Amino acid sequence: METYEILRDLAIILFVAKFCGMASRKAKAPQVAGQIIAGLLLGPSLLGLIHPSDFISQMAEIGVILVMFSAGLETDLSDLIKTGPKALAIACCGVFVPFLCGALLYFGFYGYDGFKTANFFAAMSIGAIMTATSVSITVAVLQELGKVKGTVGTTILSSAIIDDVIGIVVLTFVIGFKNPGEKPSMVIVKTILFFIVACIGGIITYRMFKWLDNRRPHTQRIPILGFVLCFALAYVAEKYFGIADITGAYAAGIILCNLKDADYIDDKAHISTYMIFAPIFFVSIGLKTSLDFTDVRFLLFCLAFVVVALASKIVGCGIMARICRFNFSDSLKIGVGMMTRGEVALIVAQKCLSVGMISSQFFTAVILLIICSSVLTPIFLKLLFAKEPATAD
Amino acid sequence: METYEILRDLAIILFVAKFCGMASRKAKAPQVAGQIIAGLLLGPSLLGLIHPSDFISQMAEIGVILVMFSAGLETDLSDLIKTGPKALAIACCGVFVPFLCGALLYFGFYGYDGFKTANFFAAMSIGAIMTATSVSITVAVLQELGKVKGTVGTTILSSAIIDDVIGIVVLTFVIGFKNPGEKPSMVIVKTILFFIVACIGGIITYRMFKWLDNRRPHTQRIPILGFVLCFALAYVAEKYFGIADITGAYAAGIILCNLKDADYIDDKAHISTYMIFAPIFFVSIGLKTSLDFTDVRFLLFCLAFVVVALASKIVGCGIMARICRFNFSDSLKIGVGMMTRGEVALIVAQKCLSVGMISSQFFTAVILLIICSSVLTPIFLKLLFAKEPATAD
Repeated sequence: METYEILRDLAIILFVAKFCGMASRKAKAPQVAGQIIAGLLLGPSLLGLIHPSDFISQMAEIGVILVMFSAGLETDLSDLIKTGPKALAIACCGVFVPFLCGALLYFGFYGYDGFKTANFFAAMSIGAIMTATSVSITVAVLQELGKVKGTVGTTILSSAIIDDVIGIVVLTFVIGFKNPGEKPSMVIVKTILFFIVACIGGIITYRMFKWLDNRRPHTQRIPILGFVLCFALAYVAEKYFGIADITGAYAAGIILCNLKDADYIDDKAHISTYMIFAPIFFVSIGLKTSLDFTDVRFLLFCLAFVVVALASKIVGCGIMARICRFNFSDSLKIGVGMMTRGEVALIVAQKCLSVGMISSQFFTAVILLIICSSVLTPIFLKLLFAKEPATAD
Repeated sequence: METYEILRDLAIILFVAKFCGMASRKAKAPQVAGQIIAGLLLGPSLLGLIHPSDFISQMAEIGVILVMFSAGLETDLSDLIKTGPKALAIACCGVFVPFLCGALLYFGFYGYDGFKTANFFAAMSIGAIMTATSVSITVAVLQELGKVKGTVGTTILSSAIIDDVIGIVVLTFVIGFKNPGEKPSMVIVKTILFFIVACIGGIITYRMFKWLDNRRPHTQRIPILGFVLCFALAYVAEKYFGIADITGAYAAGIILCNLKDADYIDDKAHISTYMIFAPIFFVSIGLKTSLDFTDVRFLLFCLAFVVVALASKIVGCGIMARICRFNFSDSLKIGVGMMTRGEVALIVAQKCLSVGMISSQFFTAVILLIICSSVLTPIFLKLLFAKEPATAD
């Protein structure tokens, strides 16, 4: 492929994503839903104008990273600490309930034939796929609604981050059962180690940024060095600690969120993100979907999978939120905000496939879940928040 | 390569580029020079931390496109028309003389072996690289001296802009002639056709943007659709007219430059450009540059290249200024003001490299020229203007 060919993809993706995003907004749904539908339209299963490529995956990756960095920057650290224990409880319950429901759903459809059989591992995989919330879509919606900084927004974000970590631990445990080469204890040690490194490194980095910022506020160097921190931490998290890169990017945002120029960095990051990278990310989700409707039992399974995945998150997180003394409306918002699935669910499915625990057929169910949750969550969240006035963000 | 590996490259490139850019500025040289040096440092010939990859080429490509789009947006079309024939004459002569001298210099060093040979095209490339003045450095110097709005200042700026356009037209012709399937007459027809299509399409697009802009000024959709136009026109130019994509991007900028929100679009484009894409472009140039100090003839060529490039601009522009009835001192100032080279020379060199007309070795000469001209021009201009009091600006 000639290098200039990417310009064609860029022009088409940005145009159709903007057009569908605007149409989606007109229909009172957030832009993000329209952008995913733009991907479906453009992808191989419908118009076939754009084909998934390394370039699109890489731009989409930067998009996810920057969305998460932005979310971190917009976090109020004191709020996060305040919501900490509650978020932990919500995340745990929001992992346990879907995992259990997912496994039971699989046994219900395909039968239980004993411990450590192929069926057993497939059921564990389906459960593991259901656990991880994809916070990026929720964040984009909360940003659009101006609700990132509220108690509900912060609780959703904190829970989703913790739930990501737990989800990855669950996955490693499930795989560890099947493959004796991977030690579950190492996963826990590595995760704890990452947070220690991020904390110590974060304090030092924050001081350096503060010094720079006091010396020359509002200069280009601040957001550029912020980007450097974001990309570096995302890379280190994934490469050396086996933690999702988006968690690293979010941590980088949190490190800088108390800086005087945090808004300035966020503003610059926001422009690059929303102008180019984020639309490509959301379109790429739509692109990956291949629509295939032949096996009736499997189709029914897919539908049940989606319903169970969404409902179990709402119930799991919602009930724990209610126990944590949120009112009914806020508990529902938290449950709905946590029901989005995205790249992490795909990564888990990919991992389960690669160790032979599920067949590639189940990918369709995961993609259906991602699409449904990404389209439904924004609509539901917008409806739930409709009664309140938007707070300044 | 795992997708997250790109984050490592991004973090390293942005950090070292910013650091070297700042150091370069401290040494009174332009940031661009520092960023290229960053690429040299990181590249295979020195530290070997970053290796050229598809990802870096693609990001660099977007960087060039956006730099050229920005340059087009910053053009003042009415000023350009007003300064009229004098600037046009100076620009033409300031393109013709360096182009001729550059080609002759190459023939002098490497011999002439006939029309349309590899050597012939290399000579044409060297000529084309010498043509384009870099407005940004000249503007910075004139601003510092308070001379932007004087007759000399306006003439230099207008000539530099026209000379950019002519330089790109020259590049277009040179590349067009290289393609063996193309008849020279077809190249001319296609080039004319492109400009006709760009003009007609441009007027229609401009009206649509104006309508949109009046309806909802300062909304995200204006810069995003501007990007779409830029990428689309760049792609169409290269794919269907065989014209460099940067010409298309520049044309897109000029189409939108009279829009009320042109500054708004430029501002958004500028942020994405300097935050991520442009540093990657300049670093990628450094990455591709192979330092080879063993070839004495090539070293001599580099020195001669710099001297000829500077002298031919002073002579070409100066003589035409004198013909246009500027006095000797003002003619000299115009000539010296036009001798700076920068991004556009690099972009032209990159284009010539990518179509196989020159080897990457010649980047060394171009980089040397950029550094020398950006250091010498301010010194010379300050000396020449020293006798006059600064006018208010």
